[in-house]
Amino acid sequence: MIDRFLRACGLQDVDRTPVWFMRQAGRYLPEYRQVREGRDVLAMCRSPDLAVELTLQPIRRMPVDAAILFSDIMVPVAEMGSGVRIEPGVGPVVDSPLRSREDISRLRRLEPDSTVPHTLEAIRLLRKELAVPLIGFAGGPFTLASYLVEGGPSRTCERTKALMHSDEEAWADLMETLGSSVLVYLRAQVEAGAQALQVFDSWAGALDPEDYTHFVLPTMREIFGGLIDLGVPTIHFGVGTGELLSLLRDAGPSVVGLDWRVPLHLGWERVGFDVAVQGNLDPAACLAPWEAVEAKALNVLRRAAGRTGHVFNLGHGVLPDTPPDTLARLVDLVHERTQRGPS
Amino acid sequence: MIDRFLRACGLQDVDRTPVWFMRQAGRYLPEYRQVREGRDVLAMCRSPDLAVELTLQPIRRMPVDAAILFSDIMVPVAEMGSGVRIEPGVGPVVDSPLRSREDISRLRRLEPDSTVPHTLEAIRLLRKELAVPLIGFAGGPFTLASYLVEGGPSRTCERTKALMHSDEEAWADLMETLGSSVLVYLRAQVEAGAQALQVFDSWAGALDPEDYTHFVLPTMREIFGGLIDLGVPTIHFGVGTGELLSLLRDAGPSVVGLDWRVPLHLGWERVGFDVAVQGNLDPAACLAPWEAVEAKALNVLRRAAGRTGHVFNLGHGVLPDTPPDTLARLVDLVHERTQRGPS
Repeated sequence: MIDRFLRACGLQDVDRTPVWFMRQAGRYLPEYRQVREGRDVLAMCRSPDLAVELTLQPIRRMPVDAAILFSDIMVPVAEMGSGVRIEPGVGPVVDSPLRSREDISRLRRLEPDSTVPHTLEAIRLLRKELAVPLIGFAGGPFTLASYLVEGGPSRTCERTKALMHSDEEAWADLMETLGSSVLVYLRAQVEAGAQALQVFDSWAGALDPEDYTHFVLPTMREIFGGLIDLGVPTIHFGVGTGELLSLLRDAGPSVVGLDWRVPLHLGWERVGFDVAVQGNLDPAACLAPWEAVEAKALNVLRRAAGRTGHVFNLGHGVLPDTPPDTLARLVDLVHERTQRGPS
Repeated sequence: MIDRFLRACGLQDVDRTPVWFMRQAGRYLPEYRQVREGRDVLAMCRSPDLAVELTLQPIRRMPVDAAILFSDIMVPVAEMGSGVRIEPGVGPVVDSPLRSREDISRLRRLEPDSTVPHTLEAIRLLRKELAVPLIGFAGGPFTLASYLVEGGPSRTCERTKALMHSDEEAWADLMETLGSSVLVYLRAQVEAGAQALQVFDSWAGALDPEDYTHFVLPTMREIFGGLIDLGVPTIHFGVGTGELLSLLRDAGPSVVGLDWRVPLHLGWERVGFDVAVQGNLDPAACLAPWEAVEAKALNVLRRAAGRTGHVFNLGHGVLPDTPPDTLARLVDLVHERTQRGPS
């Protein structure tokens, strides 16, 4: 069933639970490391041919039910005039962090006719190659803002929070600029051929529910609301979001991503069973021997209890030290153990 | 009421909600930075005079209801034969990470007669100086293990998890060695004069509930169970522990620490109202203007709803960029707003 993933996102019956992996196109693959050798990540994202090749690598290895475009959440941010690079072993680093209203006002909003052409070209090329659905994506405005304000990855997001609390208007401007750019960028991906979209608001879980509700949720509603007419499934993902799950759902996605901390059935209950969920095996567990991985994956499936609307995935991206074979076995395991009879 | 903090830990009535701050003796204080200038953190911990001075610094500034010994969770680990240093801006770094059973077997267990004499001396000296209760502490074995196995701070704790899943026996040995050492160390602190104890299992929230239950909880039960006869309150703290709260409670502490992600009333419900809680203002919020800090602190108090057994604190340690005056105002705010009539 080639549309297993899309059907599960829409809470429709499926023959087997679909599986894909966040960062399935990534460093754990030797063929990825070979391509990456000596190359800059953002430069790879900007090459449609390389983006196509890297997107296809995991698809050649294992029967995942969706492909995710090889790209980086900082790609559109770089187009917005922010000097960004991806430092190996560190993550996104921003040359001139945003610290004032003036800094924020210099950020160039993405417009529909100026939206990252290389990414859209990669999507067009991929649709010709792929049998499984292609997922496009963007970073969530809070997560993007955290890199822009902190200047790099941060455990605490303290400057970002200080900005939102000390200058609500500047924060609102920043979120509006990022939010409208993300929306434009996601819409363009669908127009180019993406069949589903994920918003990675990876660090939203740094916020308590009241700050999330006040400072982030309105922008997320604009984004998911602005995608409805396109008719593609949308996935809303973050880590450490156990207390935010009902709010992630309120933003209006088709699917809410669950990290590994929250047991799937509890997370789904907080989300509501009328919305699909994606997850939620601990990515670090995939570094363990197969027997341990299998036991933990079966626990995830047990908690899903055969319900319609579960997309199997990890609770965060694939870690670089993951044995590729473990992921391939996981795909088979999930497919075998969730096979439904003809309906 | 000088024993406000101890009474609240024991769910007894208090005249006002007690307040202290994790890492209240720390880098946000100019007088701390002055002492630290050119000095190594572990060396400062090993000097009883400096540990006393640094413990007292916040007490001189603001009427907190408890002092916490200036020390570091890696102090006893260094005594166990592991080459540890604290790198400014990074955190604990371990020279030779534990990667095998042989590495683990070389770790020297702390014994009652060989327990970090400088720390105990600092505690004895402090008891002569302090009017408020003195909190001793140790790191939780999982958190200590994560530094020892990863070699430094880690967002994922992936090698630590890989070890627990791939060699349960080696993991059990490591937890037993660390757990018994932590217990010995904490008991010695009480014998030297500490009037309460906190276990900082800061990174336990990296684990899903099933791994926590299987790989960590038994050791935590040994620790808290092994402290009961001393009759001092014990606090069990970690961040990102929203899904683990009932398990943290099951370990047997008097008080469970709540990070800032979980609203206090929901966290307390998961813990159970027959155990005290500590928390839970977002430390990053303290970098905001006072009006925002005040509003968020009042939300915490509102959620505590005047219940007996709340110790006001941040949801994690004080951040280095926190204005000291904000903490002083927080102490006054909490004391003013929670004043009870004579009972």
